[in-house]
Amino acid sequence: MSEYTEHTDSGASVGRTEKRFFTFAEPPDVLGVESGRTIGPVSVAYETFGTLNADRSNAILLCHALTGDSHAAGYYTREDLKPGWWDIMVGPGKGIDTDRFFVVCSNVIGGCMGTTGPSSLNPATGRPYGLDFPVVTVADMVRVQKALLEHLGVTRLHCVIGGSVGGMQVLEWAVRYPDMVRSAIPLATTTKHSALAIAFNEVARQAIMADPLWNGGDYYGGQAPAHGLSVARMIGHITYLSDQAMRTKFDRRLQDRSDISFNFEADFQVESYLRYQGQKFVDRFDANSFLYLTKAADYYNLEQQHGAGSLVQAFSRAKASFLVVSFTSDWLYPTYQSKAMVKAMKKNSLDVSFCEIAADWGHDAFLLPNPALTRLIRGFLDRVGQDRED
Amino acid sequence: MSEYTEHTDSGASVGRTEKRFFTFAEPPDVLGVESGRTIGPVSVAYETFGTLNADRSNAILLCHALTGDSHAAGYYTREDLKPGWWDIMVGPGKGIDTDRFFVVCSNVIGGCMGTTGPSSLNPATGRPYGLDFPVVTVADMVRVQKALLEHLGVTRLHCVIGGSVGGMQVLEWAVRYPDMVRSAIPLATTTKHSALAIAFNEVARQAIMADPLWNGGDYYGGQAPAHGLSVARMIGHITYLSDQAMRTKFDRRLQDRSDISFNFEADFQVESYLRYQGQKFVDRFDANSFLYLTKAADYYNLEQQHGAGSLVQAFSRAKASFLVVSFTSDWLYPTYQSKAMVKAMKKNSLDVSFCEIAADWGHDAFLLPNPALTRLIRGFLDRVGQDRED
Repeated sequence: MSEYTEHTDSGASVGRTEKRFFTFAEPPDVLGVESGRTIGPVSVAYETFGTLNADRSNAILLCHALTGDSHAAGYYTREDLKPGWWDIMVGPGKGIDTDRFFVVCSNVIGGCMGTTGPSSLNPATGRPYGLDFPVVTVADMVRVQKALLEHLGVTRLHCVIGGSVGGMQVLEWAVRYPDMVRSAIPLATTTKHSALAIAFNEVARQAIMADPLWNGGDYYGGQAPAHGLSVARMIGHITYLSDQAMRTKFDRRLQDRSDISFNFEADFQVESYLRYQGQKFVDRFDANSFLYLTKAADYYNLEQQHGAGSLVQAFSRAKASFLVVSFTSDWLYPTYQSKAMVKAMKKNSLDVSFCEIAADWGHDAFLLPNPALTRLIRGFLDRVGQDRED
Repeated sequence: MSEYTEHTDSGASVGRTEKRFFTFAEPPDVLGVESGRTIGPVSVAYETFGTLNADRSNAILLCHALTGDSHAAGYYTREDLKPGWWDIMVGPGKGIDTDRFFVVCSNVIGGCMGTTGPSSLNPATGRPYGLDFPVVTVADMVRVQKALLEHLGVTRLHCVIGGSVGGMQVLEWAVRYPDMVRSAIPLATTTKHSALAIAFNEVARQAIMADPLWNGGDYYGGQAPAHGLSVARMIGHITYLSDQAMRTKFDRRLQDRSDISFNFEADFQVESYLRYQGQKFVDRFDANSFLYLTKAADYYNLEQQHGAGSLVQAFSRAKASFLVVSFTSDWLYPTYQSKAMVKAMKKNSLDVSFCEIAADWGHDAFLLPNPALTRLIRGFLDRVGQDRED
């Protein structure tokens, strides 16, 4: 067992992990992105868990959600208080068993956790890109991941797994590179944002852009637009929870006081929680990356981009086995959206399993400990492996 | 018929209305508010529609929602493009028939539409109150309305009607002044905000307070915190609609363009709509009033304030007949919250009618033309009148 298991309450850990970097698209061989613009070089931050087997058949790609990173499991140092974002699922003997699988997770392009994004240095100017960074899409994220996998010698994926915007990447993988994807698990996701989801993202972006310190995206080296980014994060946090989750977690309980304050301090715990989440976020995330990644999510439209408006046609290219999972209380990407993709997959006679998990925790449920989800994923990964051996 | 009927598409109009003012609580007889502080003088902006009958038995009080005002119906001038906020319901022959009823609507204390609020002059300083204005509550709003009704010679109300935060005022009336309230229609409302509703309000407040121009509430005479207030309003607008309403109204339709822009302009109609709503709001509303009124809504807790934590006990003082109405797609104050109040009313053997109206338009549904709602209200007002004559 790892030297780090004392940190985790979710069983065995992958232990110490290390963020590594792969750089490609060095000029003049720059990367063309979907908008028609080019960028290069591109550096990708990634981590791997487990070992690639001799026939290179055990690779799993994990795609992180909006503000996630490559650090899916384990600890960087002994001092880390928290492991990676999906440590409950990824590790020896866990749902995604790193004793069996070689798991790769990389930060998306446009992000700020090591992969090239708006806060990276623009080689043309020697200064951070800011809004000179090209608007990137989910397809661009996936193409960068493919370059990384090729670099790692992975030519076929046992599975691509991800939730939320990570789930969009999973769907894009299955349709864009059907021969590379044996199976796919899109969790708590959608083939296109609803107007409601776009609306929340737009208000969050407006909150950032309304902050004078944002300064048209040119704030590097000075003060970051912390107030705007904090409000944006607060909006996000509301959408990740649910009415029921908030009632259970906070209800109307007061924060450190016996009665309401009759002023504009945080009276209620839910207010303190949101303020804390907002403030914490500004320490770790770049405001421009938030703009770029939410825009990529809003732009994603699988049926339009791959099916001329038809979701059935879009999935006609896919060959993977799918496990589609939604959560009852997810009102950001409600179950009806998962059902629509399942229907389109089935019309293409694809091998599809679908499960709506009863969970009160809203959209975030896919990141929380859930034995049902762990069993589903483990069972699916097993079955796909057996099918292969048949 | 009125000279103004050419403006309205909802039948006969009450025609021209006039905002009037009633001033009371002149120092030293200042008004004590729930926080323990005092204020005075208090000026109330109000409008009336129809005529008070000889036995003063036909008065109806309308309570407006968060950012509404006294202008419930009709037009101020010939040039007005839009009538008052509930013109579809209030007028000759309409659901609330001004040929039969004397309808009173006043702006709430803390507001910015004529009634004393944070933008009013503080007589102690000769400058606008700003945050020196006391935090007011729904109970304070109701006590000011009672002073106005006494001034108008109304000692008993045929009905108190209001939606959303106006509905909270309706509930407060029924419990605080049971002998004055023959009947009450709380629409799309709740006896206390959920953590989700508080969360949305808190993020909206944070957006305002994050705007440097807000300046601790002291911005009068200079630039208003328009960016912050605009973001706050955008957040509000999302909560007033629903997933289905947004899909019907906007879906993913693009705004004035044939394809996505690959920049941070408004690509989607829903983005333009929200930006427009936000910008429009800053021209008519005061940012501090937004803080005060949302705080009053968050503080409202009928069972705690009148029932020591028991909703049944809280309604034990009420004597009114109730018509409680919720809307299927209202996720700000979902039907389960209306059902809870109906249950508590029934346990007190109160005369209660309850209807959940199927409507896709979310929380805002109570403000939109809906024949079912009009029939319900008209029928209830008739029946309450007959009961009285028996």
